[in-house]
Amino acid sequence: MYMPEHFRETHPDEVAGLIEAFPLAAIVAQTPAGLVANHLPVMREGDAALVGHVALNNDMHRIIPDGTPVLAIFRGQDGYVSPNLYPTKQDHHRHVPTWNYQVVHVAGAITFQHDDKAKRAVVGRLTRDHETRMNGDAAWRMADAPRDYMEGMLAAIVAFRIDITGIAAKAKLSQNREAVDHAGVVSSFAARGLDVMAARMRRDSDG
Amino acid sequence: MYMPEHFRETHPDEVAGLIEAFPLAAIVAQTPAGLVANHLPVMREGDAALVGHVALNNDMHRIIPDGTPVLAIFRGQDGYVSPNLYPTKQDHHRHVPTWNYQVVHVAGAITFQHDDKAKRAVVGRLTRDHETRMNGDAAWRMADAPRDYMEGMLAAIVAFRIDITGIAAKAKLSQNREAVDHAGVVSSFAARGLDVMAARMRRDSDG
Repeated sequence: MYMPEHFRETHPDEVAGLIEAFPLAAIVAQTPAGLVANHLPVMREGDAALVGHVALNNDMHRIIPDGTPVLAIFRGQDGYVSPNLYPTKQDHHRHVPTWNYQVVHVAGAITFQHDDKAKRAVVGRLTRDHETRMNGDAAWRMADAPRDYMEGMLAAIVAFRIDITGIAAKAKLSQNREAVDHAGVVSSFAARGLDVMAARMRRDSDG
Repeated sequence: MYMPEHFRETHPDEVAGLIEAFPLAAIVAQTPAGLVANHLPVMREGDAALVGHVALNNDMHRIIPDGTPVLAIFRGQDGYVSPNLYPTKQDHHRHVPTWNYQVVHVAGAITFQHDDKAKRAVVGRLTRDHETRMNGDAAWRMADAPRDYMEGMLAAIVAFRIDITGIAAKAKLSQNREAVDHAGVVSSFAARGLDVMAARMRRDSDG
């Protein structure tokens, strides 16, 4: 990924926060049949790995051998930036449009797990995490479903683990703009509901 | 991409609409240095191609030879689906969590253009399109910037074109759920601001 230094996201908490807030990763691999991408919710296992699961019917775990390098792309919010958002445009008109966004690229080697224990572990963690966030005390639990049904569902998935070899995070957020122009973009993003980007830009201004 | 038939997006207008509404593509290629992805706003050129531009400083146009197969991933909205959103959960509890989303994968062969004419054409079209959408009659135009400045900016970019070889679009939007459960997900998405997915699901219900 093209990475001018002023756009590099270097704060580990910001990187972890993006993966948590936007957990649906595009997991890409090169295969004999060409580039393959699947969109799967994943979560971090400490700093070492990402974990998730796929449908048994998803060919991904058959055409991608264990140990294959993959790229997991996490995409935050993004938005068009018009020169009209920069107050200094009135002074010198030396601006062009651009696009702001936040992304995290996690590179790693993928392996698939077919054993019941690994599958229950990852399904349990993902469920607990997302249910607690959405439903709090009313969180749905795996134990709410009949046992035979859950066993059938677990038999229809395959767990995976991506052992992380590198992370590149980019926050293209007008860091190369004058304060007044930066503020103009923050206002526009806030008005457009791009709250995560606006909040990150405000933390930049305060830093 | 794993594609159960009930999740395949087959309406050309829906596919074109997603690319227009979410134009920041993750463009992925396999290179001698591994998988490389860059996030770039692109637009369709009829049904045959996607066009866009990258910074001259972006190594992408040096490490990806003309004609290389790439995957352009367009990502719409996405959202967690809790079993609590399904009214039929009360009857039989035979539900598990899932994730809904809309994506378009465009496969093609990329080529880069360094000539002034190609660069002006693509910058002009992208600018007109996004400025008109955001600013209407107050749209910023390239002619608003000083000529020497624009020439410097154009010298700092490279145009590209992806000749399309295939499109796979997936709308994972609870099509495999009972009407009452489908409606429960629509309500939740609408309440969470996931308006594009909610609208697409309503069109499904009406169809």
